[in-house]
Amino acid sequence: MTGRLFVIGLGPGNPDQITPQARAAIEAATDFFGYKPYLDRLTLAPHQTRHASDNREELARAGAALDMAAAGRTVAVVSGGDPGVFAMAAAVCEAMERGPESWRGVELAVVPGITAMLAVAARIGAPLGHDFCAISLSDNLKPWELIEKRLQLAAEAGFVIALYNPISRARPWQLGRAFELFRKHLPADTPVIFGRAAGRPDERIEPAKLGEADPAQADMATCVIIGSRETRVIERQGMKPLVYTPRFAGEAR
Amino acid sequence: MTGRLFVIGLGPGNPDQITPQARAAIEAATDFFGYKPYLDRLTLAPHQTRHASDNREELARAGAALDMAAAGRTVAVVSGGDPGVFAMAAAVCEAMERGPESWRGVELAVVPGITAMLAVAARIGAPLGHDFCAISLSDNLKPWELIEKRLQLAAEAGFVIALYNPISRARPWQLGRAFELFRKHLPADTPVIFGRAAGRPDERIEPAKLGEADPAQADMATCVIIGSRETRVIERQGMKPLVYTPRFAGEAR
Repeated sequence: MTGRLFVIGLGPGNPDQITPQARAAIEAATDFFGYKPYLDRLTLAPHQTRHASDNREELARAGAALDMAAAGRTVAVVSGGDPGVFAMAAAVCEAMERGPESWRGVELAVVPGITAMLAVAARIGAPLGHDFCAISLSDNLKPWELIEKRLQLAAEAGFVIALYNPISRARPWQLGRAFELFRKHLPADTPVIFGRAAGRPDERIEPAKLGEADPAQADMATCVIIGSRETRVIERQGMKPLVYTPRFAGEAR
Repeated sequence: MTGRLFVIGLGPGNPDQITPQARAAIEAATDFFGYKPYLDRLTLAPHQTRHASDNREELARAGAALDMAAAGRTVAVVSGGDPGVFAMAAAVCEAMERGPESWRGVELAVVPGITAMLAVAARIGAPLGHDFCAISLSDNLKPWELIEKRLQLAAEAGFVIALYNPISRARPWQLGRAFELFRKHLPADTPVIFGRAAGRPDERIEPAKLGEADPAQADMATCVIIGSRETRVIERQGMKPLVYTPRFAGEAR
């Protein structure tokens, strides 16, 4: 008997940003896999079991979840944000492709969520209002040279750039290097947004300028958005400024 | 007296993908602006008023909403998907920047939603599992040359590419031209996904290969995802194939 596997996006942390579809999947599952801080967000019933794991063990976690689903259980793998963006959905597919044939028979349902860049953008205006890209700054799974190449081509293309996994204790210099590279391509007053815990009580959304952007403003849970040449700031009396990227660009301005 | 303006993302169309935060904002507002098909998704109370408009009139619509909010009403502008991605949040900011000073005093709250590419990706696996970009293929608001430049740099960078607004009656050839351009940079078996109405009863999620991808498979409401060289397909007996992009890339493979 083959079971089901949900890969569920919990959004950036505000419970009001969890979709009813995700809530229903959580109710349906009996076994929960995920990085502990994400599992901690759930209120489970007595018949539901947690299988917490460390952040670095995505592939092993995905395999364990597939194995249990293949045995007939209804299993959930939970991610913060959207599970398809630098998160568990790809890890589950990787594990399925490498694993035993029985895993391929598992009914897989990915439940989308609000990914960090959308939540951060919403809190400050519309910085992603025009063409944009999302790049993980982690060089654990790809060479730094490839990341630099992408950052450079993205800046050349005029994309607004959302950086995921910008910094960590094990990767302290990469964000500073990225800022240096952007400074060669973009004006010093290009808006930069440090967005952390959007929609949560400990939210911190800090606008800055590329010329003065300090990597120390970011941590592991920050999404950093770098504007394009088109990105604008609206100052407002007694209120936070808005940052947005117009829908038009180039000669069509 | 200054009122409030919500800019609300309704997600791709499945009511179970509307967040509780969006539901609460809809309940709080008295006046609703938006493209008619999005307004049609709402069930409003007798004291709530619809102000429908055509798809092309974003800036006028944003101005009308700001004007009413500045006069003290609680106003909602609704978008499909996420309002910050090629949608109304940027139009509202544009209108605010150009408009009278009183509009800047409006309390603006952007409520994020599940954007099309996330919903489409979830229904087929994890094609956005690695670095990706989102490009609007509409040359109404930017020159086609700029779009071609971005498509080319995005392919060179190895991004998975999500195309919004791929085709319409007024823009019939752009998607075909984009495919031609990608075929110069990417292998013919690169996975392409035509994703329409994800999560709705009329959903159509069709995987294809770049070499054979036919622009006629898309319409205005389709999100087209073009894989990178890393994107993979998992065939499954008696089930739909999965498409995903691994978390690793390059030498780190």
